[in-house]
Amino acid sequence: MSAERRGRLQRLLSDRGADGALVTNPVNIRYLSGFTGSNGALLVDVDGPVRLITDGRYQDQAAAEAPDVDVIIDRELLCACARYMTGTWAVETNHLTVDEYRQLPSGTAGLDGAVESLRAIKDPGECQLLSRACQLSTRALDGLLESGLEGRTERELSRDLQWRIYELGADEIAFEFIIASGPNAAIPHHRPTDRKIRRGDFVKIDFGAQAGGYHADCTRTFVTGPAADWQREMYDVVRHSQLAGLDACVAGTEIRDVWNASVDVLADAGWREYFTTGLGHGVGLQIHEDPFIGPRRTGKLAGGMTVTIEPGVYVPGSGGVRIEDTLVVTENGARVLTTMTKDLVEI
Amino acid sequence: MSAERRGRLQRLLSDRGADGALVTNPVNIRYLSGFTGSNGALLVDVDGPVRLITDGRYQDQAAAEAPDVDVIIDRELLCACARYMTGTWAVETNHLTVDEYRQLPSGTAGLDGAVESLRAIKDPGECQLLSRACQLSTRALDGLLESGLEGRTERELSRDLQWRIYELGADEIAFEFIIASGPNAAIPHHRPTDRKIRRGDFVKIDFGAQAGGYHADCTRTFVTGPAADWQREMYDVVRHSQLAGLDACVAGTEIRDVWNASVDVLADAGWREYFTTGLGHGVGLQIHEDPFIGPRRTGKLAGGMTVTIEPGVYVPGSGGVRIEDTLVVTENGARVLTTMTKDLVEI
Repeated sequence: MSAERRGRLQRLLSDRGADGALVTNPVNIRYLSGFTGSNGALLVDVDGPVRLITDGRYQDQAAAEAPDVDVIIDRELLCACARYMTGTWAVETNHLTVDEYRQLPSGTAGLDGAVESLRAIKDPGECQLLSRACQLSTRALDGLLESGLEGRTERELSRDLQWRIYELGADEIAFEFIIASGPNAAIPHHRPTDRKIRRGDFVKIDFGAQAGGYHADCTRTFVTGPAADWQREMYDVVRHSQLAGLDACVAGTEIRDVWNASVDVLADAGWREYFTTGLGHGVGLQIHEDPFIGPRRTGKLAGGMTVTIEPGVYVPGSGGVRIEDTLVVTENGARVLTTMTKDLVEI
Repeated sequence: MSAERRGRLQRLLSDRGADGALVTNPVNIRYLSGFTGSNGALLVDVDGPVRLITDGRYQDQAAAEAPDVDVIIDRELLCACARYMTGTWAVETNHLTVDEYRQLPSGTAGLDGAVESLRAIKDPGECQLLSRACQLSTRALDGLLESGLEGRTERELSRDLQWRIYELGADEIAFEFIIASGPNAAIPHHRPTDRKIRRGDFVKIDFGAQAGGYHADCTRTFVTGPAADWQREMYDVVRHSQLAGLDACVAGTEIRDVWNASVDVLADAGWREYFTTGLGHGVGLQIHEDPFIGPRRTGKLAGGMTVTIEPGVYVPGSGGVRIEDTLVVTENGARVLTTMTKDLVEI
């Protein structure tokens, strides 16, 4: 799998007339080689040889995780890399620090996010890991709901959900969870507090598990007890907006048209001003990656992209709703991985 | 507190003839302003004005956390910074990416880790937070020991310990814990597995809590059931080495002499070749920060530095021991913050 990915990068380098790429972003190194250590550099020669430089701590791990590349042990990573970089090499100027860059030969070109672009389109193995991460996530949330929300604090719920995700066998959680209740639900990126959930609260839960390095991202919003009319109205408009966004996720669609599909629903219902975040983002080895879905983004969705669609409404002082799925883009539309009801659930 | 820290930086800039410093490392921004958001840049003018540039998401948070600096909201952080950087500014070339650096005016100088050097010496408020983080940590470990080790997996113990730390009121854990049992104890930076703890195992636990952004770092090694002679021997040499290192931690001591004090004990006992890691590091807003304690490090310990001392012995195939404390360096020697017995405990 890694070899096929490196082949795609090499063809791209060849098209650009580059002699090789120095990859230093650990996520990109993992994608292209399988190596997950925290210290390494990958040299991908356009004509074949691929070298992974790392330090002695990682000797065994590098050999096990990246069996089909040459592993070279050297504490001085970039000086070691420089020895192999003859000709014109492309480097990750969006990741290398200035001090690191100064250790490299002059005359390098920018890799310009080429590996990030490759990563945007997932292969079936990647989709499977994402699917597993999403399934673990929704099962854990089902368990949390069964144990009840009212009377517990946001922090307690966050830890309980985290615990359930580990118990189900996830490697890691995907990010620090957002559990936002009552007026806190109006804060898009709220951190869990010691506020106790009361009857009649909106409870917004944004969370996810990791599986094999791939991140699930899911949000559901619940009401404790019977929903008030204003809650029902707010929820319904977000749900319709989210479904419109999902419907637009067909391979070949302009990214800004996905934005428009979701946001037009909010605007038509008079809620546009209360939607203050992005609509969605790619998700994979990172929780936020290409493509980002916004009104000024150019480019089209392609089959195999995995993205989130997460419109919301946030009304300071009273509350808020977000509904978010992780999905795979296909020729026939969105294949949603976070399969869990989006009906308004009264807990 | 932040103003006093910025004053120290400004005196340093003045000595170097710089007109100001652009600080982009989030940890350094937090140290100098109190702001904890993930996106920001701090402009410290040598003559006074201090500006924090961040994006709209952080408007309220920046005003609350950094009330004594000018908060400027601008999505294009570095372009906004560039407008204020007239004259010779020092920038963090050890943190800025090449792409970021290219958005800045030419003719900048390197800040050369100046803020990291300031951070190495803690003020009383910082020591208090570190002390609290250490106390939470050792109380949580006491609880874990009471609940027993044998028959549980490394992963279970890791999650249980994490849970206890949160229950005691810690904000976060300080890093992914190392729970290494039996032969795994020979791996210095082992990740917890599903291996069950058996009778007669060494169980090495390297862990810590965070309090107010400050990290505790502590390691203890236990034996399940009565210790064998070889375990007792291995443990004793590490304990003596650790105590010798602690004894050397007096303000004014050369850093390499601290190394020598600990390592000489291992060498004299014939165990030198089994010590394969660093001896210690500064600890504070980051889990690893200046000063690092090694044989080729120059410079002296100063009062107010907070460091770890963590010698170990790692014998592949059979096991290993590490004992680690977090401490404050004073004129009168080490004030240990991770106060917990270092006698060999048989659980």
